[in-house]
Amino acid sequence: MAELPLPAELLSVALAEARLGLREGGVPIGAALFGADGELLGRGHNRRVQDGDPSTHAETAAFRAAGRLRGYGRTTMVTTLSPCWYCSGLVRQFGIGQVVIGEARTFQGGHDWLAEQGVRITVLDDAECIALMREFIATRPDLWYEDIGE
Amino acid sequence: MAELPLPAELLSVALAEARLGLREGGVPIGAALFGADGELLGRGHNRRVQDGDPSTHAETAAFRAAGRLRGYGRTTMVTTLSPCWYCSGLVRQFGIGQVVIGEARTFQGGHDWLAEQGVRITVLDDAECIALMREFIATRPDLWYEDIGE
Repeated sequence: MAELPLPAELLSVALAEARLGLREGGVPIGAALFGADGELLGRGHNRRVQDGDPSTHAETAAFRAAGRLRGYGRTTMVTTLSPCWYCSGLVRQFGIGQVVIGEARTFQGGHDWLAEQGVRITVLDDAECIALMREFIATRPDLWYEDIGE
Repeated sequence: MAELPLPAELLSVALAEARLGLREGGVPIGAALFGADGELLGRGHNRRVQDGDPSTHAETAAFRAAGRLRGYGRTTMVTTLSPCWYCSGLVRQFGIGQVVIGEARTFQGGHDWLAEQGVRITVLDDAECIALMREFIATRPDLWYEDIGE
């Protein structure tokens, strides 16, 4: 039986999505949802700018791309940035079992709250994720604060 | 200056969305987002079945339909059913100031948690909202439990 890839390998998919979002002029946050055996169920990135859609965060995009599923307990959500309350609520409601986070330095959402609920949380503190967000926030603070409702 | 309509009037818009969702064969939950002066910013309903999209709950549909906005503190989200954790997270992240809820008998999500965060919560205990959900859950339990990830 196949196994779930290492967290850094999972993150590479989310990072590719974040970079794609940046090239499109959007908020550079990417995510992907993996099954227990390492199969990629869905991937996506923030689409506020691209679609004028404030509801599509990276995590919700990956979740949507995976389509209708039953039972998320053995799935892993990987995201380049600590999930905001909206995306943390998604994880809690659907019982996603594990969240792998690129970094939580530039923004910290609800991942401690998820850990309290029994969600397995891994924060990688990845240098490229940090650099991507630092540069984006410095360059487009308007867009960033719009995206997190501040 | 115009004023925000009474809660029951706000609910009528969400209820119309829920009924539309039911006619489409979907999960009958509706919502709408209103501005401080009572202007309708966006409305929508759950689209799990219609679009094969598990990420579109009534509240996220209404939020998306409102487009890109800055500052949700004076907006009111009205929904036919107590918002699940996913939709409660949306309210918290974007600082939506008030939530009007049709009913919380058939399902209770995160509205007490939102009240603790300072969100103004009104639960109407509306008989039609309760009947709509009771009948739906009895008729399509598979679809209902899929929608809340259980």
